[in-house]
Amino acid sequence: MALRPDEFSLIAELFAPLAAQAPGAFNLTDDAAVFAPTPGMETVLTVDALVEGVHFLSNDPAESVARKLLRVNLSDLAAKGAVPRGYLLTTAWRAETPLDWMRGFAAGLAEDQRRFGLSLWGGDTVSTPGPLNFSLTAIGEAPAGRMLRRAGARAGEGLYVTGTIGDAALGLAVAQGKLRLARAGDNADLLGRYRVPEPRVALGPDLIGIASASLDVSDGLMADLAHLCAASGVGARVEAAALPLSPPAVHALAGDAGFIETLLTGGDDYEILFSASADKEAMIARVAARSGVPITRIGRLADAAEGIVAVDHAGRPLALKQLGFRHF
Amino acid sequence: MALRPDEFSLIAELFAPLAAQAPGAFNLTDDAAVFAPTPGMETVLTVDALVEGVHFLSNDPAESVARKLLRVNLSDLAAKGAVPRGYLLTTAWRAETPLDWMRGFAAGLAEDQRRFGLSLWGGDTVSTPGPLNFSLTAIGEAPAGRMLRRAGARAGEGLYVTGTIGDAALGLAVAQGKLRLARAGDNADLLGRYRVPEPRVALGPDLIGIASASLDVSDGLMADLAHLCAASGVGARVEAAALPLSPPAVHALAGDAGFIETLLTGGDDYEILFSASADKEAMIARVAARSGVPITRIGRLADAAEGIVAVDHAGRPLALKQLGFRHF
Repeated sequence: MALRPDEFSLIAELFAPLAAQAPGAFNLTDDAAVFAPTPGMETVLTVDALVEGVHFLSNDPAESVARKLLRVNLSDLAAKGAVPRGYLLTTAWRAETPLDWMRGFAAGLAEDQRRFGLSLWGGDTVSTPGPLNFSLTAIGEAPAGRMLRRAGARAGEGLYVTGTIGDAALGLAVAQGKLRLARAGDNADLLGRYRVPEPRVALGPDLIGIASASLDVSDGLMADLAHLCAASGVGARVEAAALPLSPPAVHALAGDAGFIETLLTGGDDYEILFSASADKEAMIARVAARSGVPITRIGRLADAAEGIVAVDHAGRPLALKQLGFRHF
Repeated sequence: MALRPDEFSLIAELFAPLAAQAPGAFNLTDDAAVFAPTPGMETVLTVDALVEGVHFLSNDPAESVARKLLRVNLSDLAAKGAVPRGYLLTTAWRAETPLDWMRGFAAGLAEDQRRFGLSLWGGDTVSTPGPLNFSLTAIGEAPAGRMLRRAGARAGEGLYVTGTIGDAALGLAVAQGKLRLARAGDNADLLGRYRVPEPRVALGPDLIGIASASLDVSDGLMADLAHLCAASGVGARVEAAALPLSPPAVHALAGDAGFIETLLTGGDDYEILFSASADKEAMIARVAARSGVPITRIGRLADAAEGIVAVDHAGRPLALKQLGFRHF
């Protein structure tokens, strides 16, 4: 049923070392893991899958595939204000998957779990005749009853994002040969942001008590804003000129103003998008300073009747082909 | 990235109803779920995957695939003494997977989550160009520090199994055309045990305070016994004549005594195999009576030096081609 004859040796070589620091993982020699949240906290759980040929390319480096798998889940936890603790991992391998590729995958996990302070707690290692298929359940903890939700934003509140927006979407364009900036370093930077997102793990928990609603930007800024607005029952107005952009994104936009649509709708940013009332400005500045991650006000929430719009520097609505509104 | 254009409508139609009873699942409209274990309990987590063509056949009914996916995980929780609470589900669908098949899958989950008292808490719905691929993380709770482990068994203790052993392996033989019993009902019974195992959810938590070590039989009775023995540092002696057999298994064995090997090593039983000291006999009988699930003593644990053997009615070791010992 499971991968033979190597399932157990694979687990021992590749995965058990990733569980060594977690007493509740029993060195991956048992059937389940145990976890008791810190008193006053509750468990927060999220899961995301990556499929070869759908979410990553067959020639993507194993390390970056593994790191992306872990990081997209950590980004969900961060946007919910949760501190990551552990993860469960399902891997489906082909018989011909090179052992070196699997070792690279485990090395990517090892590096990032050290960086973000969590451990592997368990998993399932199976074989597949099809594309590689990975599923990761991330477990964190947040103060009981205070996990940040998509619901809770109110008209009139400010709208904020962490970091910079649009780099990953431009990085995908670079990977696809649709964009090539003059400075080689710019292309590499964008590609890096696409391959290995930077979940805002250190910042997210500080948003509890500040953000009225929060989620991470994965489908695209406007699409995820639409999710937040739908859950909160509000509309929103985004000032395109206020978008925080990296130098490579500024260069891309200078070369072709049409890239504004890519920035607003492209996705894979894994930044936190949140709402907060006006009296939280000073707290937001302190959180940004403490984490070293910039937080930028990009617009405001409005009544639901006003819809969800992005406007240019003169206040004119931008005509975007796709906002994610179809999900309503 | 994810399945388009139907991801959100699929979630709303098929999966959100499965989350309706769980406040911490937020109707699947948020990025994560929250769970706080009952005071005095801790969270128990396990994950298992099923791949089309590896763990189930393309023409298996959708309902039974979904129920098996949930039940193999519930069996792990039961063997650990945990009460199931919720699950996270990753599904990878092909563009051409019929909506009716997906509806059947959701209906199978709906039926079994009602039966076993848990809810869907979250998941990820993606597309794949390859075989269907499902991964399910089951979350339960057990008294803090008392989850049943594979480690803990001691030489001299009794060895017990729940239910009957070998039916699923014989059912697979029926499915493969390698076995056909005279009574049609026998074949259907065995096939049913293969397709839809019966996790011992109501019984498992009662084994806390009784079992010194425990796991569920999935790889095969002897292979899983070897896992328990390895973790506990003991050997074991199984009396083949003591194996609890269903009437169809008795009929199969009457027709061909060679099936004893299938019963001992075939797997997919999803019964609980546990060890207990002699003073627990009366408690074991009470637990069996309360749950309505028979518990049978099938042998005893021994010093590690005695190895792991199955013996016939005269005490002669059975020569089994495969015990699972290669994992040592």
